[in-house]
Amino acid sequence: MQMDRQSYKRVLMGPGPSDVDPRVLEALARPTMGHLDPAFLGILNDIRSLLQYTFKTQNQMTLAMSGTGSAGMETCVVNLIEPGDPMLVCINGVFGKRMADVAGRAGADVSTLEVAWGSVFEAEAIDLVLKRKPAKVVGIVHAETSTGARQPIEEISRVVHDNGALLLVDTVTSLGGIQVEVDGWKIDACYSGTQKCLSCPPGLAPVTFSEAALQALEKRKTKVQSWYLDLTMIRQYWGSERLYHHTAPINMNYALLEALRIVKEEGLEKRWARHWANHRMLRRGLAAIGIEYVAQAGYELPMLNAVSVPEGVDDAKVRKQLLEEFGIEIGAGLGSFKGRVWRIGLMGAASTESNVMLFLAALEKCLSDQGHKFPRGASIAAAAEADTQ
Amino acid sequence: MQMDRQSYKRVLMGPGPSDVDPRVLEALARPTMGHLDPAFLGILNDIRSLLQYTFKTQNQMTLAMSGTGSAGMETCVVNLIEPGDPMLVCINGVFGKRMADVAGRAGADVSTLEVAWGSVFEAEAIDLVLKRKPAKVVGIVHAETSTGARQPIEEISRVVHDNGALLLVDTVTSLGGIQVEVDGWKIDACYSGTQKCLSCPPGLAPVTFSEAALQALEKRKTKVQSWYLDLTMIRQYWGSERLYHHTAPINMNYALLEALRIVKEEGLEKRWARHWANHRMLRRGLAAIGIEYVAQAGYELPMLNAVSVPEGVDDAKVRKQLLEEFGIEIGAGLGSFKGRVWRIGLMGAASTESNVMLFLAALEKCLSDQGHKFPRGASIAAAAEADTQ
Repeated sequence: MQMDRQSYKRVLMGPGPSDVDPRVLEALARPTMGHLDPAFLGILNDIRSLLQYTFKTQNQMTLAMSGTGSAGMETCVVNLIEPGDPMLVCINGVFGKRMADVAGRAGADVSTLEVAWGSVFEAEAIDLVLKRKPAKVVGIVHAETSTGARQPIEEISRVVHDNGALLLVDTVTSLGGIQVEVDGWKIDACYSGTQKCLSCPPGLAPVTFSEAALQALEKRKTKVQSWYLDLTMIRQYWGSERLYHHTAPINMNYALLEALRIVKEEGLEKRWARHWANHRMLRRGLAAIGIEYVAQAGYELPMLNAVSVPEGVDDAKVRKQLLEEFGIEIGAGLGSFKGRVWRIGLMGAASTESNVMLFLAALEKCLSDQGHKFPRGASIAAAAEADTQ
Repeated sequence: MQMDRQSYKRVLMGPGPSDVDPRVLEALARPTMGHLDPAFLGILNDIRSLLQYTFKTQNQMTLAMSGTGSAGMETCVVNLIEPGDPMLVCINGVFGKRMADVAGRAGADVSTLEVAWGSVFEAEAIDLVLKRKPAKVVGIVHAETSTGARQPIEEISRVVHDNGALLLVDTVTSLGGIQVEVDGWKIDACYSGTQKCLSCPPGLAPVTFSEAALQALEKRKTKVQSWYLDLTMIRQYWGSERLYHHTAPINMNYALLEALRIVKEEGLEKRWARHWANHRMLRRGLAAIGIEYVAQAGYELPMLNAVSVPEGVDDAKVRKQLLEEFGIEIGAGLGSFKGRVWRIGLMGAASTESNVMLFLAALEKCLSDQGHKFPRGASIAAAAEADTQ
């Protein structure tokens, strides 16, 4: 009975984890080797090189931290911040709020700039705030997983650097799914997770630091408050010294390497295009029954579709039926979106036409079972399909 | 070529990771599900229950943290310590030293008690130190992976509690290999790793907190400095609330559950006896060629055999030959033991008669190749085998 639980095959269309390619699961199950084995150190080199490709960066300090995405966030913050350092955090959802919390715990003098959930930030607003109070680091979320909003980074990067600050960007949900340009956008510190558009199980956090971020690290007067996440030590393990720090999660690194190879084989640009195409198909299907996106128009994320639960529909009941009848997981709303928003993921290996069609058909069934009246006669699945012709 | 690296099959006889049972690797590769999926929450319940069995505790707050053993250490320290809290750390090797470092970063007023590497602590010495300067928390390592010394805990626990402190014990290398009695020895906070005697790949850190430790957590006036390791929040995910905190490493939890089932099937007492029996066999074989243990006599760990490199033998060359010719990984000395000590692991699934015999035979070959003169005519493998009759 207990064994069975581990054998459920889901269709992971929530906010992550996403579906994992069988090749990645196969790599995960290979025999464990030692963290100082020359063969494993070769694997770490391959991971770095493929992460550089995926982040679009030449940064030497590019590696996978031994924790999930939130550990990546904490890594960037605690390594860049010393007690009293001013940090500006932009908040438009759960993950910006989390970053401000992490920064406060690291002793930063935290300022926040907030806009409504679902909205994105204008560079001018950030410029104004920085003019009033300079910051050492500005933190912002590229793809807000709680609201489905896509934050343009390039213009913001310009004002952040004009004001002498370092730019820290959360790409947990965006990396491998939409354009991320660490070097092109001059991002100084960037973190992600493995379980979103990279389609690897959760457990590692890719992180990359620019030269300027490295200099800030080297100029520290105090120890990094977290021993486990201290990049001044971890870089000696990932670097040519190969000094033991902690025991890396060996098998998770096998899986990440395989997931990154799949990204490279598909090619980033084609992968981004696939995420956009499947998003458009889903969107047309949802529009046919009047289901609307909650993110600011024009800034919707393709891999995380946050939409309003239709009037009169029981949110939890639909999600339960999707899971139990179809094995489909979608996400509930977080925070102020609880009960009002669904988060439909189309991430990595889960971003397929088949998943879109399956989901639309299944949703139609769940809504019908609740006596929901559709705005027009045509079925949503048929509408989505017709539009793709 | 790159794929091949991941397919190496090693015999893991170093300080961890240890050999992983194929059942555990198979569980690791099962389809990923969501961290809020009712089926996954059931898996977390099963893990808690089996960790309670393995730690020998009734503690409700028993869970697996989403990082390796060092993250478990940091979890215990940062949750129990607030800035300025006095903490005594007992140092007789690398991991005690690490704990003092972690405590300092957490803002503890750190005192240390040090004895020579390889030695163990007497309760009286700790009592004296605590009488002079009381501490909120006393940290000590049960099985020092750098020296192979086994620290008796029971008597020390008595003096720690008589002096009003909480007892924090590192069981990274001991859990599942020798007797660990969290409730019986009145340990307040205890952490371990998955990749030693539990024979699961590295990536999770089992942790357990007593009622007294929980009370200290609840009485905190300041936030835990690490968001990622904050048990005040994580307990709401592992507890009945099931509140989202971070995305748990799903597949690693599948693997841990399977590894813990294997522990339960074998039975703790039988597992401990197996570790002792294979240690004795190894020891007789090593004694036959005059190789000596570096830990204090009578306190040698069965799963981590730290021995002196024989005079005139090239340490690195032997380890390289063991790995390349036989696929056997053993550990080098750390810190002041570098170049002078080998660390031979017999942990979990790797603690077998076959591994002992293979290792002794392989070591004999490597030493012979260096022209090493054995103290008596008999081969070490034969000596070990003869003694078991």
